[in-house]
Amino acid sequence: MQKKLKVVTIGGGSSYTPELIEGFIKRYDELPITEIWLVDIEEGKEKLEIVGNLAKRMVAKANLPITIHLSLNRREALKEADFVTTQIRVGLLDARAKDERIPLKYHVIGQETNGPGGLFKALRTIPVILDIVRDIEELCPNAWLVNFTNPTGILTEAILRHTSFRRVVGLCNVPIHMNMDIAEMLGADISRVHVDFMGLNHMVYGSKVLLDGEDVTDRVIEMMANASDDMTMNNIAAFKWNPYFIKALRLIPCPYHRYYYKTQEMLEQELKDAENEGTRAEVVKKLEDDLFELYKDPNLNIKPPQLEKRGGAYYSDSACRLISSLYNNKGDIQPVNTINNGAIASIPNDSAVEVSAIITKDGPKPITMGDLPVAVRGLVQQIKSFERIAADAGATGDYHTALLAMTINPLVPSDVVAKQILDEMLEAHKEYLPLFSK
Amino acid sequence: MQKKLKVVTIGGGSSYTPELIEGFIKRYDELPITEIWLVDIEEGKEKLEIVGNLAKRMVAKANLPITIHLSLNRREALKEADFVTTQIRVGLLDARAKDERIPLKYHVIGQETNGPGGLFKALRTIPVILDIVRDIEELCPNAWLVNFTNPTGILTEAILRHTSFRRVVGLCNVPIHMNMDIAEMLGADISRVHVDFMGLNHMVYGSKVLLDGEDVTDRVIEMMANASDDMTMNNIAAFKWNPYFIKALRLIPCPYHRYYYKTQEMLEQELKDAENEGTRAEVVKKLEDDLFELYKDPNLNIKPPQLEKRGGAYYSDSACRLISSLYNNKGDIQPVNTINNGAIASIPNDSAVEVSAIITKDGPKPITMGDLPVAVRGLVQQIKSFERIAADAGATGDYHTALLAMTINPLVPSDVVAKQILDEMLEAHKEYLPLFSK
Amino acid sequence: MQKKLKVVTIGGGSSYTPELIEGFIKRYDELPITEIWLVDIEEGKEKLEIVGNLAKRMVAKANLPITIHLSLNRREALKEADFVTTQIRVGLLDARAKDERIPLKYHVIGQETNGPGGLFKALRTIPVILDIVRDIEELCPNAWLVNFTNPTGILTEAILRHTSFRRVVGLCNVPIHMNMDIAEMLGADISRVHVDFMGLNHMVYGSKVLLDGEDVTDRVIEMMANASDDMTMNNIAAFKWNPYFIKALRLIPCPYHRYYYKTQEMLEQELKDAENEGTRAEVVKKLEDDLFELYKDPNLNIKPPQLEKRGGAYYSDSACRLISSLYNNKGDIQPVNTINNGAIASIPNDSAVEVSAIITKDGPKPITMGDLPVAVRGLVQQIKSFERIAADAGATGDYHTALLAMTINPLVPSDVVAKQILDEMLEAHKEYLPLFSK
Amino acid sequence: MQKKLKVVTIGGGSSYTPELIEGFIKRYDELPITEIWLVDIEEGKEKLEIVGNLAKRMVAKANLPITIHLSLNRREALKEADFVTTQIRVGLLDARAKDERIPLKYHVIGQETNGPGGLFKALRTIPVILDIVRDIEELCPNAWLVNFTNPTGILTEAILRHTSFRRVVGLCNVPIHMNMDIAEMLGADISRVHVDFMGLNHMVYGSKVLLDGEDVTDRVIEMMANASDDMTMNNIAAFKWNPYFIKALRLIPCPYHRYYYKTQEMLEQELKDAENEGTRAEVVKKLEDDLFELYKDPNLNIKPPQLEKRGGAYYSDSACRLISSLYNNKGDIQPVNTINNGAIASIPNDSAVEVSAIITKDGPKPITMGDLPVAVRGLVQQIKSFERIAADAGATGDYHTALLAMTINPLVPSDVVAKQILDEMLEAHKEYLPLFSK
Repeated sequence: MQKKLKVVTIGGGSSYTPELIEGFIKRYDELPITEIWLVDIEEGKEKLEIVGNLAKRMVAKANLPITIHLSLNRREALKEADFVTTQIRVGLLDARAKDERIPLKYHVIGQETNGPGGLFKALRTIPVILDIVRDIEELCPNAWLVNFTNPTGILTEAILRHTSFRRVVGLCNVPIHMNMDIAEMLGADISRVHVDFMGLNHMVYGSKVLLDGEDVTDRVIEMMANASDDMTMNNIAAFKWNPYFIKALRLIPCPYHRYYYKTQEMLEQELKDAENEGTRAEVVKKLEDDLFELYKDPNLNIKPPQLEKRGGAYYSDSACRLISSLYNNKGDIQPVNTINNGAIASIPNDSAVEVSAIITKDGPKPITMGDLPVAVRGLVQQIKSFERIAADAGATGDYHTALLAMTINPLVPSDVVAKQILDEMLEAHKEYLPLFSK
Repeated sequence: MQKKLKVVTIGGGSSYTPELIEGFIKRYDELPITEIWLVDIEEGKEKLEIVGNLAKRMVAKANLPITIHLSLNRREALKEADFVTTQIRVGLLDARAKDERIPLKYHVIGQETNGPGGLFKALRTIPVILDIVRDIEELCPNAWLVNFTNPTGILTEAILRHTSFRRVVGLCNVPIHMNMDIAEMLGADISRVHVDFMGLNHMVYGSKVLLDGEDVTDRVIEMMANASDDMTMNNIAAFKWNPYFIKALRLIPCPYHRYYYKTQEMLEQELKDAENEGTRAEVVKKLEDDLFELYKDPNLNIKPPQLEKRGGAYYSDSACRLISSLYNNKGDIQPVNTINNGAIASIPNDSAVEVSAIITKDGPKPITMGDLPVAVRGLVQQIKSFERIAADAGATGDYHTALLAMTINPLVPSDVVAKQILDEMLEAHKEYLPLFSK
Repeated sequence: MQKKLKVVTIGGGSSYTPELIEGFIKRYDELPITEIWLVDIEEGKEKLEIVGNLAKRMVAKANLPITIHLSLNRREALKEADFVTTQIRVGLLDARAKDERIPLKYHVIGQETNGPGGLFKALRTIPVILDIVRDIEELCPNAWLVNFTNPTGILTEAILRHTSFRRVVGLCNVPIHMNMDIAEMLGADISRVHVDFMGLNHMVYGSKVLLDGEDVTDRVIEMMANASDDMTMNNIAAFKWNPYFIKALRLIPCPYHRYYYKTQEMLEQELKDAENEGTRAEVVKKLEDDLFELYKDPNLNIKPPQLEKRGGAYYSDSACRLISSLYNNKGDIQPVNTINNGAIASIPNDSAVEVSAIITKDGPKPITMGDLPVAVRGLVQQIKSFERIAADAGATGDYHTALLAMTINPLVPSDVVAKQILDEMLEAHKEYLPLFSK
Repeated sequence: MQKKLKVVTIGGGSSYTPELIEGFIKRYDELPITEIWLVDIEEGKEKLEIVGNLAKRMVAKANLPITIHLSLNRREALKEADFVTTQIRVGLLDARAKDERIPLKYHVIGQETNGPGGLFKALRTIPVILDIVRDIEELCPNAWLVNFTNPTGILTEAILRHTSFRRVVGLCNVPIHMNMDIAEMLGADISRVHVDFMGLNHMVYGSKVLLDGEDVTDRVIEMMANASDDMTMNNIAAFKWNPYFIKALRLIPCPYHRYYYKTQEMLEQELKDAENEGTRAEVVKKLEDDLFELYKDPNLNIKPPQLEKRGGAYYSDSACRLISSLYNNKGDIQPVNTINNGAIASIPNDSAVEVSAIITKDGPKPITMGDLPVAVRGLVQQIKSFERIAADAGATGDYHTALLAMTINPLVPSDVVAKQILDEMLEAHKEYLPLFSK
């Protein structure tokens, strides 16, 4: 008889789920899952049904003995789970739109994972993720939690600081995108290209590139400086890095670094976009509506190609790859969010970092990276300070702590503006911030 | 016969010199100086004469056996000096005006010690200060160098990183101002008030306030939050801290922190000022002209009270106080810029910090401060990264390093703007940046 | 009316008390104590009476308004105390004699503060000192605890690790002795000599010597290497340092370092002494009996000069000096045992160290010392590891932890011998180790 | 045509060479070596001939296109090498016998890699290994140096501190032996067992054991505590660990830890052995003579099984495995001696450590281990201090530095004995210590 292998996906009604299901189907030989529980909340019931039924059709088409369960009862679903993935969005895209729109009113970048928007996404999500962790500790303490809910760095920090649970890995699709872009630039298959990743989530740098084990970092830097267009992702404007800066930096920034190294251009672009096609949340909302229309089609039994435009491409696939390596004790190297433990010298040992790590059944083991180059050390440390304060604000609901997080965020231009944005956003999101009303 | 005690002041023609002379006269009993050499460069000859003659009249009036020497020959002056003070301004106030005006064209703060202006003041001054250090090492290796030339933090960093000379103390009048303001707030004589200072130059925080040895930090924070007006200095706009922020921070920021916690308001004020009364350099220039007119008066034989408006009040007095403690092995506590050596936990041990230290004949010994609170750690570390790169750029004249410093400065909004400002300022200041033309 | 200033001395029946009383009398002008409570336990009642009456006669002779209280009720005595000093000896000199005799049976150094003896003195004393701290937290939370009970380093470590009380200073007479010996060697009054002390209790090094503020370290090293006899203390055999070693070390070891750098000679001496005049405890016991005979004399109203032979000379005087500096917010420098906080780079920040510190009303503030020289770093770190494990063993009564402490102690030659000594000593001291019987 | 792949073995005349050749033959498919240069010095010419001819017969039997070169000209051999291995013994086994015999005269452990013997092996070898590194930097700068000459930890430290060459890996057969013993204990194939190794060479601990990725550390500790016999190696007496100690330690010590945790028993055994069958060097000398007799046999064309008794079993095989992983960019995990870089928290980042690392074409990348448990941290730090001072003594030939290394070694009982041993050993080895005669 087949050994039970149970995966629980919280936020199962997400539009990403078909990619996840596809990823599990593709890896069935090495990862023989017996049950997948898609869990959602009452408000997401309809979407859960649509996505869940598509998932069932996909599994049926693949002719695999995987049972798909749809559930609104998280605690029941978690019992004896082996892996738990989280892809939740507290307040849905409407809340994200507020995260984007409100800061823009103050001429401040409005973005899902950076600045005031990132702070509020964290404040709404932290209590929920801490609740999930408490349930896991009780109901399936040996499960691995693979979190790819944003902002995954701050959520991992919150779990490290406010629980004793350590079987958590934060996952992001940014490094895999960077890795693919670099491979493309080098004209090489991705399997031949290794990148050392070090930093924080959405603040990660490629510090070394190896092609078949040979150091080609300088070549990649040179190519980036001379490229006519630039690595970026669907959801981030493709402003080109100043070539002199890239050469001076001698590191490969991630697309999100544009919010810090091109603050002015990004803000202007966001203001223009908000006026024209709408903020990213508003654009995505339309994309999602279209996707769910597609998902309803009873003849659809594969992941529709349109999903890739959604922006989260490779997220779910990365999750499947990570789960398989944890399950199979593979020992391959993947970039993850995990406890630093000395991997990056000037980040506190007990903080979450995003770093290349060996993935074993015993969890991710970061590779020793030494210190961040001086030129980026300060910015990374500043964001880490912000993340720690933000994690504490989310876990406690303390107003002053939240104000501190807002004010020290480098995208916020003053203590006075910080308070104005904070107050307006606290009011706008109050339904999803119960700790702050106490 | 009197034992020789020789002080050399480089930049002796500065308008600050009368305060320095007054400070020495006041302390003659404990600091029996025999000769003061005021040294300047050819271009400053006229001012040197004016100030030098005033100094001679002041000494004569005090009826003290101090000989004042005026010299354009730095190396001759340095021979067997016991103390060397530096108060130089490479490029004079015209260069400072450019440091202020050029960034403003790009909507970036233009200030003497922060942002692009601070970077360029450092780039112009570092080669000169390193030259002075080399002369000292040769001609008076046992002298103490007391530097109060701005930006003193970056200059101290440059000396630590690019020479093996360690008998240097960087001095700033910001902590003494803060100390005085806090004492006033507490209604107590300054001798009863101790403040723990920790951070970097112009980025220093008061972390603890003791009144007669009792911890009154919370009381001071509360008073600051409720104050109707705010501690600041002549040269910095007096925007009030948001009281919620100050309580959340639970630290006493320095006036210069406004550039980081009130970036937007400060920029707007600077733009307005530049259009109306002129930038700070332009205002100071007029003040200085008036001062030198006063100084010329052959009947003047004291420090004229108008000097206090100049903005550098207590600078020279702090220097005299420091020199006396070094000379007399006093063991009192003063805030200085010196090598960290572990005093502030998350700043590299070999970096310059501004910190409360015991002053002995053997130099300043920082008091162990532990770690910076998380909320400010990131910003301080970011400025430290900037200072280290800036110090290297100044010492080497390397274009890419200078670009890196400019881009990572938190007041500069993008890599593209960074390059534009850098290029324009390199051109504007090229006369004073010989290393960059090589 | 006189402001209350209450000092409580736990272990008040100690033979050291007259020195303490003398110290307070001598400093009455700056430290106007109103009441001294001498507290002891039932078994010490007789000695308490003898010493207490002498104390009363001393105060009467000095004609000062200090009230001496004798008490067996610690909790009553502690109420609203301003300073608490501890000079207790759990198990009295008989226990110390066992600490010395038992290890010698295994050819292992038997000493009060080092090796197995030091471990057991810690195991017996830690529960008592933690109890005292709990009482202080409840009854006089603003008091300072000045502990000069041995092994003061491990006791301070235990308080730091197992309570949240921080108003504790560990005191030792070793640094003051070193300071005096160095001054004598230099032919200078002690007031002109400053020594930087860094390390751990009974493992402290003089790292720099200043005479009138000038660095004379090399001169002192040279003198030590060439001296015909050597600095030591009454209770430590005076083996001379090898002059080549001292020059290579370029640090001033403390007398107790002989146990580590002259293990063989010290062991042989101890074995010989044990056979002849008896161990140190046995010698001291006789001295103490004689002292108490003296103390009984109703005509005696001063500290008898014979006390100095006892071995603890300057202990009590150091305590008075420390208390006065805490009380008067003096800001002078004294070597104390306190939380490291970064003062010594490669010792954990939260560990106890012995280090030169400024003494203020707000407590001792260590001076930043940088890192221990490589040559001694390892030994100091090894003892610190031992101290931490010993502190945990004492606080928990855990057998395995105690075994670990015993085995890793560098004076213990094997895991097998460690267990033998541990078992024999646990049995011998079981009356005073209630936690280990649970 | 075959691509050149050149391996140079310095000390090619060693008795270990047949295992090395066997290892290369066995791995030819993945590691297609074209030339092996066996290099030795004039004094080793005869052995080189004997071993070299056996190597040629082995290759011939395997029918592989590997050319074996025998050479006394190191510089010629190094030209364009891809890998360099070193297995030298400066002063041959006669010197080792002195390293063992002389300390025993002073009742101090005499051993090849620990205590005074380890120090002198380092002092003799460091100048030679630094010379080799200088040759490599000039003649084959892209080669990897795989050093398995003892004491490999100190030699790696010396290279890190006294050259800028970083393509060096220090190798030891201790971890592989531990891994094999643990696998045997678990009754599992070694491929299923992973051990986290952390520490220093011959001072390495297994901190975690995974069986098929599951943590079985506690089980292994329990088995070790209860085992009737114990893991050790040919050359180290098999004293059993005290089971209480092993449980308290909760780490797996290496066989060489007996020198520190069983100093007394090991010394007694050594004294007995020296009197009876001779010291280890003397025993090995006979074994070697026998081996060379075997090697001479023109019919022998395989590694003779008798070699395993020699004590260095798996050394050469480990080297071949490492070289293959470097060459093939394998990414497998192997324990090596390399620069710490943060892998072990309380060892300086720039020091050599022995640690599990991923082996890539770009070199070994240590896995982040966090901090050493407190109980072993001190001892490891003490040995690291010793290693650093020893490395400096070897590189400089400075008498005082050597004396310092000798005195701080934990196996040496006093500063006086240290000087006696040092002086006698300097004299005995003076032929091989040219730097000390200058």
